[in-house]
Amino acid sequence: MNYAELSQRIETAGHGLCVGLDPDPSKLPAGTDLTTFCMGIVDATAHVAVAYKPNFAFFEALGRPGWDALDAVTQHLRALPQKPFLIADAKRGDIGNTATRYAEGILGVMGYDAITVAPYMGRDSVEPFLREGKWVVGLGLTSNPGADDLQQLALHDGRRVYEAVADAYLSWGRPDNLMVVAGATRPEALGALRDRMPDTFFLVPGVGAQGGSAEDVVRHGAFRGKPGMGLLINASRSIMYASSGPDWLEAATKAAQNLADEIQTAYRG
Amino acid sequence: MNYAELSQRIETAGHGLCVGLDPDPSKLPAGTDLTTFCMGIVDATAHVAVAYKPNFAFFEALGRPGWDALDAVTQHLRALPQKPFLIADAKRGDIGNTATRYAEGILGVMGYDAITVAPYMGRDSVEPFLREGKWVVGLGLTSNPGADDLQQLALHDGRRVYEAVADAYLSWGRPDNLMVVAGATRPEALGALRDRMPDTFFLVPGVGAQGGSAEDVVRHGAFRGKPGMGLLINASRSIMYASSGPDWLEAATKAAQNLADEIQTAYRG
Repeated sequence: MNYAELSQRIETAGHGLCVGLDPDPSKLPAGTDLTTFCMGIVDATAHVAVAYKPNFAFFEALGRPGWDALDAVTQHLRALPQKPFLIADAKRGDIGNTATRYAEGILGVMGYDAITVAPYMGRDSVEPFLREGKWVVGLGLTSNPGADDLQQLALHDGRRVYEAVADAYLSWGRPDNLMVVAGATRPEALGALRDRMPDTFFLVPGVGAQGGSAEDVVRHGAFRGKPGMGLLINASRSIMYASSGPDWLEAATKAAQNLADEIQTAYRG
Repeated sequence: MNYAELSQRIETAGHGLCVGLDPDPSKLPAGTDLTTFCMGIVDATAHVAVAYKPNFAFFEALGRPGWDALDAVTQHLRALPQKPFLIADAKRGDIGNTATRYAEGILGVMGYDAITVAPYMGRDSVEPFLREGKWVVGLGLTSNPGADDLQQLALHDGRRVYEAVADAYLSWGRPDNLMVVAGATRPEALGALRDRMPDTFFLVPGVGAQGGSAEDVVRHGAFRGKPGMGLLINASRSIMYASSGPDWLEAATKAAQNLADEIQTAYRG
């Protein structure tokens, strides 16, 4: 999906809601397994979500049953009539042949539109994922407590590490093939990043369960002068685990709809 | 395997040779598949190598056949009578539950001694992998061309980013549960890192195909005053692809033995 198409999707929906699929085996609703749970969440939210982001770690960490589930969920996502934007949250950070193989596997064979990539190894860990019509999603400013340990260190030239990483991304890719993870839990830093990358899409985790507000994210992170644009806002746990009871599907639909409404309201702001 | 046991292994062998398993489907010797090729390399080097390091990317990027091969190769490594130190080169960088699951899957179920981890997300992406008798191998100074893009940036306080990462590792883990990737291609930086982390094991890639010399690595990277200690020196391509002909097994044995000899000679200085 290219820049214009993704922009159009967000404009039509009125929000860039991304549903993260982080299935926790200890939290599955009764009568489901990993695959049916994820498919259920997808079906319950497909009329709302613009994008989906399976977190590969949750699947891979289970070994073979997890890999099978990831395959099945991926097929299910690709078969949706809405054709959502599909992000592989794989956080790869490898180089050369290795990275090329991951790119082929995940963006090629598995058919994802985008893949999250870690920047620590530099340009040759990011460039192999830059492909026509596909997207790198580079870790920039993450939403976890440890994010400050490295990302916020002050450089000699006055920049923070995450700002230097943003500048590197701008030199490695373009706004139509590279977006950046920019966490909702640090709204001011999100704004600083927006000033630095005016046309780059941000994938924003940390809304919902992690405490970031959609209003703050939109105010600080949206394209300047185009308040409805430039953001894919991800929520995972607050949608997947909206209810642990037999109403989990309805609860997921409602949670997704509520967050989409919240983002739209913020856009109209 | 704990610190004393790993030290003893290296002392007994006279070197810390680690054989990296980076199987490239386009380079398989005639009559082999991914699994038999890797097992062949393992059997051809098991009397020399102290450690093995399967690069998960090469397997994962192939999808299910790759995962099956990784499982089979892992079983084969665990069944070796020499009980080598096993490093999962997975370069994970996830947090919380996700990281915990990876740790359980790779260090627990799959039985690896160690796992490579990326530092960009900070403390909570490293701590879940710290387990009794197991090791985190944190990316510090990598050996690829893009390593300088981020790792060598100068901080306001005079450190380089990779030095700040090293200091962070020292505060997150201990020398008996955390080692650091320190590339052979930058010997002076390797020395600076050794001054900073006197008792921390280094996993050193970049010897052989990438151009680093065993002599330089030993001179700059070994424990000060214990020149035979503190290093696991990895070679992948120079051993796996020592020959593309029918003599690939003999060639792998010879390449591993030659590198082990080279390291031992450097230790004797």
